[in-house]
Order: sequence, then C-alpha cells, then structure tokens
Amino acid sequence: MKWIDGGVTAPKGFWAAGVSAGIKKGGTKDMAMVYSQVPCVAAGVFTTNVVKAAPVKWDYQVVHESDYAQAVVVNSGVANACTGAEGLGHCKETAKTAGEALGIPADAVLVASTGVIGAKLPMDKITEGVRTLKEALGSDQKAGALAAEAIMTTDTKPKEIAVETVIGGKTVTVAGMCKGSGMIHPNMATMLCFVVSDVKISHSLLQKALSDDVVDTFNMISVDGDTSTNDSVLLLANGLAGNEEITEEKEDYRAFCEALHVVMEELSKKIAGDGEGATCLFEVKISGAPTKEAARILAKSVVTSSLTKAAVYGHDANWGRILCALGYSGVSFDPEQVDIWFESRAGKLKIVENGVSTGYSEEEATKILSEEEVTAIADMKAGTETATAWGCDLTYNYVKINADYRS
Amino acid sequence: MKWIDGGVTAPKGFWAAGVSAGIKKGGTKDMAMVYSQVPCVAAGVFTTNVVKAAPVKWDYQVVHESDYAQAVVVNSGVANACTGAEGLGHCKETAKTAGEALGIPADAVLVASTGVIGAKLPMDKITEGVRTLKEALGSDQKAGALAAEAIMTTDTKPKEIAVETVIGGKTVTVAGMCKGSGMIHPNMATMLCFVVSDVKISHSLLQKALSDDVVDTFNMISVDGDTSTNDSVLLLANGLAGNEEITEEKEDYRAFCEALHVVMEELSKKIAGDGEGATCLFEVKISGAPTKEAARILAKSVVTSSLTKAAVYGHDANWGRILCALGYSGVSFDPEQVDIWFESRAGKLKIVENGVSTGYSEEEATKILSEEEVTAIADMKAGTETATAWGCDLTYNYVKINADYRS
Repeated sequence: MKWIDGGVTAPKGFWAAGVSAGIKKGGTKDMAMVYSQVPCVAAGVFTTNVVKAAPVKWDYQVVHESDYAQAVVVNSGVANACTGAEGLGHCKETAKTAGEALGIPADAVLVASTGVIGAKLPMDKITEGVRTLKEALGSDQKAGALAAEAIMTTDTKPKEIAVETVIGGKTVTVAGMCKGSGMIHPNMATMLCFVVSDVKISHSLLQKALSDDVVDTFNMISVDGDTSTNDSVLLLANGLAGNEEITEEKEDYRAFCEALHVVMEELSKKIAGDGEGATCLFEVKISGAPTKEAARILAKSVVTSSLTKAAVYGHDANWGRILCALGYSGVSFDPEQVDIWFESRAGKLKIVENGVSTGYSEEEATKILSEEEVTAIADMKAGTETATAWGCDLTYNYVKINADYRS
Repeated sequence: MKWIDGGVTAPKGFWAAGVSAGIKKGGTKDMAMVYSQVPCVAAGVFTTNVVKAAPVKWDYQVVHESDYAQAVVVNSGVANACTGAEGLGHCKETAKTAGEALGIPADAVLVASTGVIGAKLPMDKITEGVRTLKEALGSDQKAGALAAEAIMTTDTKPKEIAVETVIGGKTVTVAGMCKGSGMIHPNMATMLCFVVSDVKISHSLLQKALSDDVVDTFNMISVDGDTSTNDSVLLLANGLAGNEEITEEKEDYRAFCEALHVVMEELSKKIAGDGEGATCLFEVKISGAPTKEAARILAKSVVTSSLTKAAVYGHDANWGRILCALGYSGVSFDPEQVDIWFESRAGKLKIVENGVSTGYSEEEATKILSEEEVTAIADMKAGTETATAWGCDLTYNYVKINADYRS
C-alpha cells in the first residue's frame, strides 16, 4: 500500500466539483459534489445525537434502502438541522434537482450540510448551485481539491488523502475528504467525511468495514466534547478497479480494510489537529489497560479534559491533570501503578512512575510540549489492551471563534 | 428561616482563623482552621475520582471511624494529591500537630488541601502554620471571613453564607464556606466546602441530610467537566443550639434539611458563578422530563457544553447548541416537542417552540444574555420532572488561567 497525491477524484470513475453558490458571504466556496460514472454500493455511519439533522435522516434511507448511490451533494454555511419537516423536504428537493441534472434517480443522491443549526436552506441558491456543480464536474486532482475546499466551515485547511493498494492483482484506490473543526466529539461518526474507492465489494462488507473502522478512528477524536447533529461518514465504492468482488472476510477484505483504515485515521487526525483555535494535535496513547473498551474510555477522558488541553496550549507538563482525567473516566484502576510519558519530535520523557513524579526536567518537558504534534502516553500496567485518541489544545481562539460564530 | 451575616463562626461554639504560612508566594493567606469548642458529629461526601488525594482518604476515615470531630485544617497552594504513602503521612502529621495544639485527639482533626497536584506539602511551613492558626482563632465574623479567604486558589472572591432557623423552639444556625473555581465538575461533592451548625442531630441523619442534598446542589454544578482528586464537603454539628437531638426523619429533620439546602445551593452557585475566567453564572433549568435522573442528565449536558458556554460568553442566543447538547446527553426524547427560553433580570424570551425557532428578536435575546446571571429553560414535554444545573461561560481568561497555572 502506498500514499498517492490527490483526494476524492483519485479512484477510477469519480468526479468532483466545488463552487460558490452564495450561501456563505463574500464568494467563499460553499457547495461540493462527488459523482461516480457508474452506480456505487454505499455505506454510512451517522451521529448518535437524538437531534438528527435532516440530511442524516435522508442519507440513512439512501444507504440502507436505495438500490445504489451515485452522487453526493454537500453545502456548507447552513446545517439544515432543527428545521422540522420542511428541512427534510429540502433534502428531497436537492436530491431531485441533482438527480435530474445528472440523469440518475433522486434516491441515488446523498446530501450533507454543515453550518449554523436552526437556519433553513436557501433553496433557490441550492438549486442553482447544484446545476453549476454539474457543469463544473472534473476528474483531475484540482476538481477534488475544490470540493474539499467547498465543504470547509471554520476549518483552516482542506483535508484530503488518497492511498493505493493491490487487491486480487488489481490496483485499488481509496481516497477521502472531510471537514470538521468545532462541535467535534463524534460518536459513531464525525462531522462530514466522504470516502470513495474503486474497489468492488459487497454492500454488507462495505458497511462492516466502515462501521468497524470508525470505532478506532473518528470515534476517537474530540475537539470540544460536543457531538454534532450532522455527523456523517459516507463511503462509496464503484467497483471500477476490476478486482473480483469482495464477498468474504478473507485476504482481499483485510487489504481493503487496511487501506481504508489509513485513510480514516489520517482524516481523523487532520480534523483533530485543525480543531477550532488549535495550535497543536494532541495524541493520547493508553497501554496496559484491562480491556479495549477501558483503553478507549481512558484515552478519550484525557483528550477531552479542558484543563489538560489548556495545559498543552501552555506547554505545561501538568501531569496531575492527566492522572486526574484518567481517574474520573469511570474506569477503575490503581493510580499508584500508572506511568506517564510525554513524546514529540523533540524527544520522549518519563514524567510519572507508579503514580508519582519522576523528578523530570521541566525545561525538557516544555521543549517536548512545544511541538505541533504532542503525545501523552499512559501505561496503566493492568492488562495488555491499547487505544489512541486524538484532540487538540484549548486556546483563546477556540473561545473567540465560538463566542460570535453566527455574527 | 432567615439569612444572616457571617460565615463559619455564625453557629454557636465555632471559631475560625485564616493566616499566611508561606506556602503560596507573596504573603497570600494559605491556611485556615475551623474549631468547635465541643466535640461534633461529622458527615462528609468526597470525590468519586479513582485518584483520591491523601486528605480525602484521611477525612473519610475520620468521618466514618472516629468517635467525633472537632477541627478542620485547610491549606491552599498544594493539593497533596498523587503523593503516595508520604502524602498520607503528611495528613497524619498535620492532624497530630493540630491535635496537640488544640488539646484534642489527632483523629478528631479533619484536613483538606487544594492547589497543584503532584507537589508535596512543605511540612515545616504546615507545622508552623497550624500553631499560628491556633493562636489566631476567633469567634467573630472577621475570623470566619479570614478563613474563607485563606482557602481560595483561583477564586476571585471568598464564598460564605449563614442562615438561621428554628428547630424544637431553639434557634439553630447553619453556615458554610467553600472554594472552587477550576477543575469543577463534582461527582458526589465539590472541591472544598465546609458547613457547620450548632444543631443537635444523630450521626446517621447528619450524613443522610448531606448525602441527599449534594445530589441537587454540588453535583449539579460544572465549570469545566474536570472532577477533582480533592473534592470534599464536610459538615460538622456541635449541638450547642440546645434543640432536642434529631434522631428521626420528622419535622425537625426537614427544617434542618431546608436550612442546609439553602446553604449548599447558595455555595454551589457561588462556585459556578466564580468559575475560572467566568463573566456570568449560567443556570440551566429542565422541566417536563420523564424522570428526575433524565432531568439532571439533560441539565448537566447543556451546562457543560463548551460550545453553549462560549455562545453565552458572546451573548449569542445560539439555541441550536442547546438542542444539540440535549441531544447527545444520552437521554432519549422527541426533539420536535422541545420548547426553549432564555431568562435573566432583563426579561424572558421564548426562542424555540416544538424544536424550531420562534422567530424571536435577536436583539432582545442578546439583551437578556448580557446580564451577570443567565438562565436557559428547556421544557421537554415528556413528563413532570425538573432539575437545575449551574455553570458559567467559557472565556479567554479560562484558557489563560489554565495554560500557565503552575508558572
């Protein structure tokens, strides 16, 4: 498997576009389309929030009930959440317009929205935008990059990735793009992520591969503990790689899962590291946990601790806050067994041994904590299970961005 | 029942002191003592964090195993948490020194610490401080105020209260002081709170009154979601009011519980409103919930949402974040039933009806949100249970305070 340049247009037969439809101010790109030349099997995982945005309800139906999917239409600026029956009507109308423009059934069109909750979609702009997108579709890297740019809200950079692997003697490409910066604490999925592949695979195994992988990727990131109403990860596979269809959990399936995992983990980390106001990616690795679930809970408890995140921003090796966050996670353990390290490009330093300070050099710790990617490692010495979670530091700018988001 | 001036020295027979022992820099007060002229029954509730500070372990023993308690020694600056066996030894030593100075058994002395986790208590300063405290003990309001000042860390103001009620024809006083500003998300108790009364009551009923009341007071506040290693609420009753001992859950018990609740709720709100960096007290009231537990979970989910807290700081009526936080709380409900209001001294405004915007005036909403105490009310229309939680807004200063707390 190898990393290649590009994004959602990298796999065979996938086209994309990103345009400005006038939903956001100042001519910023705010609509994107991903289109496959041939029908795709589709999988999806969605927010567990009781309050589900209209597009989440629509996409759930398409993924689980339609014969196939062939396009995704995304808008940023307005989330189409808490908009009642009218909001769901707007999804249907968007899909219908896109279906007509592309010559495919409306129920083969997935839709996604991100932005302010409670506001209604400006349907005249959306309709016009869908037609512009259809005309702008392209199969080159640039087209994929424009789509990745158009789905951004408070993101500071577009997020895309592509990898190649070989399955049954054929080159298979898996690629994706995502957006997300605030309201990031996915539970089953994250804000918006679109993964595409030219692999040939059965519907049930595509869904299984996705559902299994989010547990260790998107469900392990957190920017602020707020699980959005719109979280969606969509995965489309069009089969154009020409491999023999994957219908069993054997070698081919594992090769696909491995490529999928790289794409999903990398996109997850891109979201965590670009958290609203963040100056660094904060990674938490737990080892020696009694169960996998305990390891995940411990890792997420540390990565979501406001006090720990503020300390990381201050480059302060305040390990007491890490031990404290492990302690209130709900997992039972012996604090007097725990070892803690900080690690980054600048080095690795043992801070705590058996629950008390090692008497480490604060200066060296600050140096390690001053990098753009910082890892805290906790060995619970109570088993063999591990887990990793990703988040970011808590900064003045997170508050600034969110105090006046709607202004 | 009526509110009276003063703090922990208001009930008969309670003396207090607050001094500078040199633990914190610059001559700031950092040690406090509360002493009763006669032995007290004592109750306590403590952190549920797996990582428990040494004083929590010591006090648990005193409350549940000692014949009586008669004094509390508190230091700020160092939390004596994650300090292993040596830390517990330091508690014992502090209690022994205080016991000798006061002429009472060491196991009648409760101790409490707050400050940096992981650092060791400077025992020479603590020992000297205990002796200074003994000499400084006074029974007037000033003495109580000095104690309330000495237990502060990042608090911007001391927190004390006293109320009087009549039980069995006798005037009974209940008073308390507390501290807490960051790492505030108590679970069974909060940072440090000391409540004293001259009521005569049995040990088991005193503990029951306290344990029952924290559920709706200290367990319903949150500044940052971090449950501290040192959370403790201690309650001492010395019986000097002269009422007939309360041994049954009848009228006298209810009168005491009512006074205790006022003291506990007011101290809880003082902590929430003085949250690190906060500019306002944020209150969340849930009504129409199917169960009491659901109401509490919903209220706490909103009051702890970083995005909602940042919006409150920005005086932005971003109700979508409130509905979103209700949605990921774990409680199941129909979003299209929910009504939401904002309320403050400046008025009350219905923002959401049946899950969608009422088309309210943003200007009026901003006016309501610009007060020092702001309430969000959500009616779930799914039952009759209610709950209230208290927190604060999320500001630049929270980040600033916590990025360099140890510097």
